[in-house]
Amino acid sequence: MTEDRSKIIETIKNSRKFYLISHMQPDGDSIGSLLAMGEGLRSIGKEVKTFTPGSVPRKYNFLEGADQVKHDLIDGDPTTTAIILDSSDPERLGLLKDVFMQCQIIINIDHHVTNQLFGTFNLVSSSASATGEIVYELLKDLGVKINTTIAEALYVAISTDTGSFKYDNTTPATHRIIAELLTYGLSPGSLSQKMFDERPLAFYLLLKEAIAGLEMYANRRIALMTLSRDMRKRCGASPGDLEGIVNYSRNIEGVELGILFYVENNQEVKVGFRSRSVDVSALAGKLNGGGHARAAGCRLYDDYETVKNKVLTEAIKALTDQAG
Amino acid sequence: MTEDRSKIIETIKNSRKFYLISHMQPDGDSIGSLLAMGEGLRSIGKEVKTFTPGSVPRKYNFLEGADQVKHDLIDGDPTTTAIILDSSDPERLGLLKDVFMQCQIIINIDHHVTNQLFGTFNLVSSSASATGEIVYELLKDLGVKINTTIAEALYVAISTDTGSFKYDNTTPATHRIIAELLTYGLSPGSLSQKMFDERPLAFYLLLKEAIAGLEMYANRRIALMTLSRDMRKRCGASPGDLEGIVNYSRNIEGVELGILFYVENNQEVKVGFRSRSVDVSALAGKLNGGGHARAAGCRLYDDYETVKNKVLTEAIKALTDQAG
Repeated sequence: MTEDRSKIIETIKNSRKFYLISHMQPDGDSIGSLLAMGEGLRSIGKEVKTFTPGSVPRKYNFLEGADQVKHDLIDGDPTTTAIILDSSDPERLGLLKDVFMQCQIIINIDHHVTNQLFGTFNLVSSSASATGEIVYELLKDLGVKINTTIAEALYVAISTDTGSFKYDNTTPATHRIIAELLTYGLSPGSLSQKMFDERPLAFYLLLKEAIAGLEMYANRRIALMTLSRDMRKRCGASPGDLEGIVNYSRNIEGVELGILFYVENNQEVKVGFRSRSVDVSALAGKLNGGGHARAAGCRLYDDYETVKNKVLTEAIKALTDQAG
Repeated sequence: MTEDRSKIIETIKNSRKFYLISHMQPDGDSIGSLLAMGEGLRSIGKEVKTFTPGSVPRKYNFLEGADQVKHDLIDGDPTTTAIILDSSDPERLGLLKDVFMQCQIIINIDHHVTNQLFGTFNLVSSSASATGEIVYELLKDLGVKINTTIAEALYVAISTDTGSFKYDNTTPATHRIIAELLTYGLSPGSLSQKMFDERPLAFYLLLKEAIAGLEMYANRRIALMTLSRDMRKRCGASPGDLEGIVNYSRNIEGVELGILFYVENNQEVKVGFRSRSVDVSALAGKLNGGGHARAAGCRLYDDYETVKNKVLTEAIKALTDQAG
């Protein structure tokens, strides 16, 4: 945690007007943190405008305030205090980067370990499971009274980034915060259904294709699925509907390493890796990609068969090296 | 909550030998509560034998103490104190019912609203998300020091019965307990993977068949899937591998009511219902079945086409009535 907390509290107390923004391609943590911060500041008499570069995914429309998020800012006032949430880097603000970075005071609130500390004041804690946790603590310090709108937005933020408290970034503090948020009358059932379980029909049709093409290697420890742009279009699916399919390969009992090939065309294949034990960040790194130890990916510019052979060779090697 | 708490604490303190049991077809809550209670009592010097009627599912084998659970008890000593966990009714103890019900002192610990209060002393709280929550409080009251073994077993108990904190039975107390359990060095990541995400290949092959046969009715608000015994065998799946497939029908965006038909043979069809809004307990009730408002089922003794027509007619009626 950086040492700017007290300066941030002082700055917020002394400012009247705020621009709030979170990163492009908003996820639950970025949109939830944005809306909670916005509602919290308004509740203590501040004038707040909320922004995201690009639109908010439909699944978050139910959150109060989501319909008031703006996507462009022309003639921004540089004396307005900017708060940038859940963004490791100003590039994540897309076309809104310049107008935000021109503000005289920039408050940077984030939990990414790679955060570039680009703010005038920075509140960055990589031990927080979500930016929503940091926003919760900050609102408390500002004397904001949590209400149902704030609680719901923070629940969405934190439960998204922890996969409903399933990931190892979940800490005792995470659960303590959620315990308090639930006292504001939230329904974990309907929130979780919206965030985790509900997917469009096209997703399930794609999943069917992915399972139909399943191949197992390395004594069933590697599961491989293949989808293509053609299949996606046939299923009526958008690129976003591919999200999560790769997990199914890794979730098969006994599988250590799941791989999803997405064939864009005959000279470009996107590859996703999910693992139970193998370091797929290193594996993806060898293939000019990157990511985390258990979830990574790369993009290779060759035909499917060539890519598949190359990736499988490296994957089997990674599995063998790890066992050795 | 019944008023026997202090008598139970006194009884446990004054007893030396215990038989512990939880219900047949063990789930995470029953096995987790059993093992946590067993380890807790042993840690304060008690002599404990743990039982389940029938074997423990393979997925719980990783829990410490799971390999010491016994499945029969011949010449049981009736002066040993019996603790029956997570069982609404002694019938849930199967073949071990008689020997347990002969014990002079029976402590009944459960969270089912339908619990028959069959114990000498009863600790039954239907507001607890899981029996694991009640066991946690009781162990605290007994002065047991929580350790990693107990924490892991209770985490499994509580996270199972709340669907990783997604269901509406999850309360602030649930999260407060989990916050403490996580301080004993658990990995929510690996526990959740084992409990929720890992399924055998046969499950995914069945899921593929279910999606392939998907039909939509009532302006896409009803999704219907059909599987058969033949398909199941072709996929190499056990009856248990069907578990969870029905959820996928309800999880399609826009679907209010998901139905899974499982054709046992040409005169018997098992029907599962999952809903977002319709009261499927009432719907199943009309078809001689039962269950909860959002998850219910029935079994009809007729050929598939007849069953399908009958169920669809009632389902459409239920959807229309609700809208009206």
